[in-house]
Amino acid sequence: MQLENNLATDTTWEIFETSFIPEQHVTTGSNYMIGNGYLGYRGTFADDRAEDRVACVLTDTYDRADGTWTELVTAPNGLFTGITVDGNPRRWKSEPRRDYRRTLDFRYGIWSVRATWPEAGISLREERFASRGDLHVLASRTRITADRAVRLRIETGIDGAVWSLNGEHYREISLQPRDESGPPPVQLEARCLTREHRYEVVVREICLLERNGTACREEILREGEGIYRRYTLDLAAGEMISMTKYVSSWSTNDFRSTEPISSDASRGPWPHSGAVQEAAARSASQAAEKGWEGLQDEHRRIWDARWADLDIEIEGDDLAQTLLRYNMYHNVIATPVHTDHLPIGARGLSCQAYQGAAFWDQEIFNLPMFLFTDPGTARNILVYRYRTLDGARRKARDLGYKGAFYAWVSGDTGAEICPSYFFRDVISGRRIRNHFNDWQIHISPDIAYTIWKYVLVTEDRDYLRRYGAEIVFEVARFLLSRVHYRKDLDRWEIIRVLGPDEYHENVDNNFFTNYQARFTLRYAREVYQWLAQHAPADLQRLQRAIGLAEQEMKEWQDVADRIFVPAPDGETGLIEQFHGFFQLEDTRPEVIRERLVDPGEYWGWPNGIAVETQVSKQADVIQLFVLHPGAYELPVMKANWEYYEPRTQHGSSLSYAVYAIAAAWIGHGEDAYRYFIQSCTVDLYNRGKSISGGTFIGGIHTAACGVAWQIVVQGFLGMAISEEGFQFAPRLPENWSSVAVPLQRRGEKITVEARGGVFRVRADSANGATVSVRLGNVRREIAPGEEVILDPAREE
Amino acid sequence: MQLENNLATDTTWEIFETSFIPEQHVTTGSNYMIGNGYLGYRGTFADDRAEDRVACVLTDTYDRADGTWTELVTAPNGLFTGITVDGNPRRWKSEPRRDYRRTLDFRYGIWSVRATWPEAGISLREERFASRGDLHVLASRTRITADRAVRLRIETGIDGAVWSLNGEHYREISLQPRDESGPPPVQLEARCLTREHRYEVVVREICLLERNGTACREEILREGEGIYRRYTLDLAAGEMISMTKYVSSWSTNDFRSTEPISSDASRGPWPHSGAVQEAAARSASQAAEKGWEGLQDEHRRIWDARWADLDIEIEGDDLAQTLLRYNMYHNVIATPVHTDHLPIGARGLSCQAYQGAAFWDQEIFNLPMFLFTDPGTARNILVYRYRTLDGARRKARDLGYKGAFYAWVSGDTGAEICPSYFFRDVISGRRIRNHFNDWQIHISPDIAYTIWKYVLVTEDRDYLRRYGAEIVFEVARFLLSRVHYRKDLDRWEIIRVLGPDEYHENVDNNFFTNYQARFTLRYAREVYQWLAQHAPADLQRLQRAIGLAEQEMKEWQDVADRIFVPAPDGETGLIEQFHGFFQLEDTRPEVIRERLVDPGEYWGWPNGIAVETQVSKQADVIQLFVLHPGAYELPVMKANWEYYEPRTQHGSSLSYAVYAIAAAWIGHGEDAYRYFIQSCTVDLYNRGKSISGGTFIGGIHTAACGVAWQIVVQGFLGMAISEEGFQFAPRLPENWSSVAVPLQRRGEKITVEARGGVFRVRADSANGATVSVRLGNVRREIAPGEEVILDPAREE
Repeated sequence: MQLENNLATDTTWEIFETSFIPEQHVTTGSNYMIGNGYLGYRGTFADDRAEDRVACVLTDTYDRADGTWTELVTAPNGLFTGITVDGNPRRWKSEPRRDYRRTLDFRYGIWSVRATWPEAGISLREERFASRGDLHVLASRTRITADRAVRLRIETGIDGAVWSLNGEHYREISLQPRDESGPPPVQLEARCLTREHRYEVVVREICLLERNGTACREEILREGEGIYRRYTLDLAAGEMISMTKYVSSWSTNDFRSTEPISSDASRGPWPHSGAVQEAAARSASQAAEKGWEGLQDEHRRIWDARWADLDIEIEGDDLAQTLLRYNMYHNVIATPVHTDHLPIGARGLSCQAYQGAAFWDQEIFNLPMFLFTDPGTARNILVYRYRTLDGARRKARDLGYKGAFYAWVSGDTGAEICPSYFFRDVISGRRIRNHFNDWQIHISPDIAYTIWKYVLVTEDRDYLRRYGAEIVFEVARFLLSRVHYRKDLDRWEIIRVLGPDEYHENVDNNFFTNYQARFTLRYAREVYQWLAQHAPADLQRLQRAIGLAEQEMKEWQDVADRIFVPAPDGETGLIEQFHGFFQLEDTRPEVIRERLVDPGEYWGWPNGIAVETQVSKQADVIQLFVLHPGAYELPVMKANWEYYEPRTQHGSSLSYAVYAIAAAWIGHGEDAYRYFIQSCTVDLYNRGKSISGGTFIGGIHTAACGVAWQIVVQGFLGMAISEEGFQFAPRLPENWSSVAVPLQRRGEKITVEARGGVFRVRADSANGATVSVRLGNVRREIAPGEEVILDPAREE
Repeated sequence: MQLENNLATDTTWEIFETSFIPEQHVTTGSNYMIGNGYLGYRGTFADDRAEDRVACVLTDTYDRADGTWTELVTAPNGLFTGITVDGNPRRWKSEPRRDYRRTLDFRYGIWSVRATWPEAGISLREERFASRGDLHVLASRTRITADRAVRLRIETGIDGAVWSLNGEHYREISLQPRDESGPPPVQLEARCLTREHRYEVVVREICLLERNGTACREEILREGEGIYRRYTLDLAAGEMISMTKYVSSWSTNDFRSTEPISSDASRGPWPHSGAVQEAAARSASQAAEKGWEGLQDEHRRIWDARWADLDIEIEGDDLAQTLLRYNMYHNVIATPVHTDHLPIGARGLSCQAYQGAAFWDQEIFNLPMFLFTDPGTARNILVYRYRTLDGARRKARDLGYKGAFYAWVSGDTGAEICPSYFFRDVISGRRIRNHFNDWQIHISPDIAYTIWKYVLVTEDRDYLRRYGAEIVFEVARFLLSRVHYRKDLDRWEIIRVLGPDEYHENVDNNFFTNYQARFTLRYAREVYQWLAQHAPADLQRLQRAIGLAEQEMKEWQDVADRIFVPAPDGETGLIEQFHGFFQLEDTRPEVIRERLVDPGEYWGWPNGIAVETQVSKQADVIQLFVLHPGAYELPVMKANWEYYEPRTQHGSSLSYAVYAIAAAWIGHGEDAYRYFIQSCTVDLYNRGKSISGGTFIGGIHTAACGVAWQIVVQGFLGMAISEEGFQFAPRLPENWSSVAVPLQRRGEKITVEARGGVFRVRADSANGATVSVRLGNVRREIAPGEEVILDPAREE
């Protein structure tokens, strides 16, 4: 089926285009990317260069090249291949071209492209994937068919001139052919040393060009910042050759323990004396030994297993089916499933934007999909927050607070890497002092909230005892030092924050923030009491380790009891987003848009066009409802949805999904579906801006990818979780004949299928216990292997 | 002697210019103005029009014409006179011109100008003054001499097309000749109705043109928005004629009781059925009856009496002498000495800028001169704060606080008339949401502080019982509701304020603000205890009237005991201006000036060039020292002066004086003198900008005028006051051979004279008690009529 723009799908498991639109290359580069959580390789062409935003982004390579921005580095491009036919460079973008098709198969994360150039007399076809078997490996295979006799020159190797957003990360780069490891023949190597931390990044490349089963003669050459092999071949009409490349990328940090590396560690040059090179050489040659088919078989098996627990089947709506799979794919490849010391980047590994770092997006948007389909990865992510707890403690201390104040932008160490000047005033050209890093405090209670939810769903008390409790206590301590008491009102307040709606920095008593703070303080007390009862040794250990006293628990309780959380208005049901919000100019995004002097202006604080108005960047009050489904009655949710929705500009990709989920709950089915589609196509339909306030913010919005799952499961299926078990309240889009979803809770797996009025639940036969499922007033305990149909109407 | 620019003085009692510089007309219009606290008439020429910024600003006529800015109205110009010679218009500005001289005599507030036009064959000479006898009256006399036979046409009358900063204030204007009051002949009348409040403003004009003692025939004509008399005369060579005008201005508000008029009172048209007209007619004809000489004699006697208690004589420095008198003159004419329900405007009556309204300038800068030389006026000003207490209560309530939060910009009712959008971002053209009105809270404790000082100096317990105590209690209540408690630090804080340094809005724990708050809370307790002991009936009345409970006093004490006031650093002695100030970029005004994109940019919050730096607009820490001379040791003052001084941009006219006074104390004599001169010449040398951030802020900086007195008396003479009496620590500028100052305290008058090492004090023979004076370690009680010489060196 045809999608928007130039996109189409045949199977709902892929997207493809048959026309190339140069202006979209910055976004298609992201959309068609491949990756595996260790590296991300953009969906650009093999003959693209840095200016085309080619990038292989490596996880765990945080480095600051320009003195301001910490970000992941981009590795030298080992997949570069340039082709000349009869002396004329033949770019993938060259016209005239026939039978062009670029495809991303997201079932297996395989990128491919093909085209024919009748005038030049050749056809090209290339496939590539980022191995799930060895996360360091990229593999590609290019097949060239001569339609008539041609002289072909191929230059393939490693292009060291990488695209980098904020400065040149390599202080040294060494390009060498290496043959020390014997056959297969020579490996090319780019060995780089990063500017700030002197990490070593090594890329090794193996290329096998066969002609009739024989390897071709190659010359090695250095050109610019690259090292290449050159093949010169005279092909006969109808002759086909095949070139297979195996590229491996490793960095020094692949050898570190799980302890975060201190950000001020000073290292000498080339600290690891060959270890990184050896690993890269080994990866490359092992991949070559497995061969194209072998490597891909292993890769596909891993993807098959992943989809078995994850895939949602929608009948009746191929568009939704395609978009949902596309988004889940991107959430998977963005996530460092291989480790518990790395975050999910807000742009994953699609580019360097947002610094390869975690925001609150990670817990609130990326994580839930894993929580119910791959809880080990959810745990990894939350262990990551434990590994960065010291960074959060340092941040709190540096700002004059106690406990743990998590980084708004969190890399490997948990140190705050959000620059103080994020955007630029495009009118004056001057930097804007955004207070994302010091005022957006809800990140800390959001993590505590997610720990609560993780433990509720998984019952992983081991996590709670070893990691979670300490985080929750330290966040509660932070909150205790961040609240202010107002005597005349006898209440605690939270002053000068930035809630989820980022257009209004510097506000007081933000509903979302205060609610989450209260929730955390109460939960901290519960955890304390649980430990006291069930794990007294762990409590004692913690009391010693962090000097925890029982008195603190009482203070948490006291503040939680008297912290001000704006309540729904008795008459209208409206909740004020923050103190004074309703006094701001009441207008609409489309109205204030007219006030822009420059389309690139940042709309938010301190003096963007939205600041003195009720126009919000994204959901804020509604966001809270979605996190706490039972906390407010439906009429209150409805009143607020209807009030805030027209005042929301959706300047954040996090916005659509929240409105979609809440819309499903309150019975605004059409809105829910519309917002679902919008959320799923933030990247695909190129909705976002690549540049805002002078800063590149392009790439894959991984939060929007992760939350696609939530819209379907929490929104349309109305899934909620409690101590008792699952509950559902399906409100499917009209055109869906059915939806089937696999879910996990506390080690038990079920598949639920909603089809018409029928709600069918199958419990996995390998389950160890019954699973409790509620639909309306009907509750059922479902035994391992059992399948039941719930129908509240029939049972009444 | 010659001063800077084109200014000179002969007697130190006047300034004059003998060349006219058109570009300076906007400032000379202010500098040469006359006034009497009821009206201010700018020092423009009789034939100037609205575009020349002619204005007669009337006190107590607050009105909002454009829906945004409340300001005083400008009355129709009754002094307009245009002259045509032989058919050619003869403007005061016309060239070629000889013997031009414009003079402001500030001993008597007499403006005069003269010139000869040889080609036209005439000489003109004009004098004018704003009567101190009848504050409604302006009088002018013009003498015209024909140097050869000429035909003269004079058009004189009322020009109704007034200069107005923010909109047209008159919804109706009626121009009529009026002869109902009989001889002297016909009065011209402009009767206007203001747009917002429908105040009536009536201007009456009488003109007596005599030729050889005979009145001349006149025609009445209306032209544009004016009504004029036209005289046509053929003068012989050498003939001189004289024209005398008496203009009176009245408004509806001259008839109101002292109760402030509710700002939302709705009135019908022409509400006062003739009363305003009658009063204006009477003022004009009474002035004409007194005649030019009679009116001026009365006027001069009043000025003589004023200067007798005020004038400071400096020997050895005519420049300082002239500047000081000039500034004291302007402080006097800006002040509504005739009433206790009006404020001193930040620009006095020199124009409409700053809305004819009081800022903290009034108490901190304008008032001290009156406190020691005219305590009745000081009392009036502080009674004004009582009359506007309800306005302050409303403001507190509207913003969610208790007690009294005084208006940052305070007009007749005490309602906040500071617009939320004061400046404009000249780069984007967009409004700036300045938080002067809601975050600059120090205005309230500054008023309480001044009440403390007023009572200390005057011992006017009657004021305290009737007015002051209630203000102080309500301010303390406001502070109680404005502070926040931080539990982890066990201290009270004041969050999100704007201190005196206006470039840094949105700061916490501003040293100045927190100190003044603590001072006020302690003083409130003292006042409570004093009332309980000495005036229990007044306390009971207050307890009933404002529901005051003894418990509140304890709360004031508790907060005062634990409010955080930044302390001097143990090592450096530095006090941090506000939390985080020392972390800001440490740079200098001249450095960041280079970053301006547009010279008209506002430097301050939210994103001016100073905001993220340590560059301050004006004194802040140092300001506090000057208010509390004994509170910090000299080395601390010195360390802070030396730190903050190079980082201060002096973007406010309030800045120089503060640095001058503190410089005198710490022994930086040259700096003290330099800043004294700078402070005294803010207007005279045209230092300030007339326009900032797109807003007209020209006119006379009355605070700088008032504080000139303080630099001499508190700075150079080192005067301080305590319960005991006066104390002095003279540190005169090197070139001063002597300075003599009259002072009053608790009804007793003294004159102190410092001459070389000799310090002479004369007590007034009319004094009722001895006066205690301390110099160094020497203290003397000086009996009525006694003169003593204090010389600590000799007595040791």
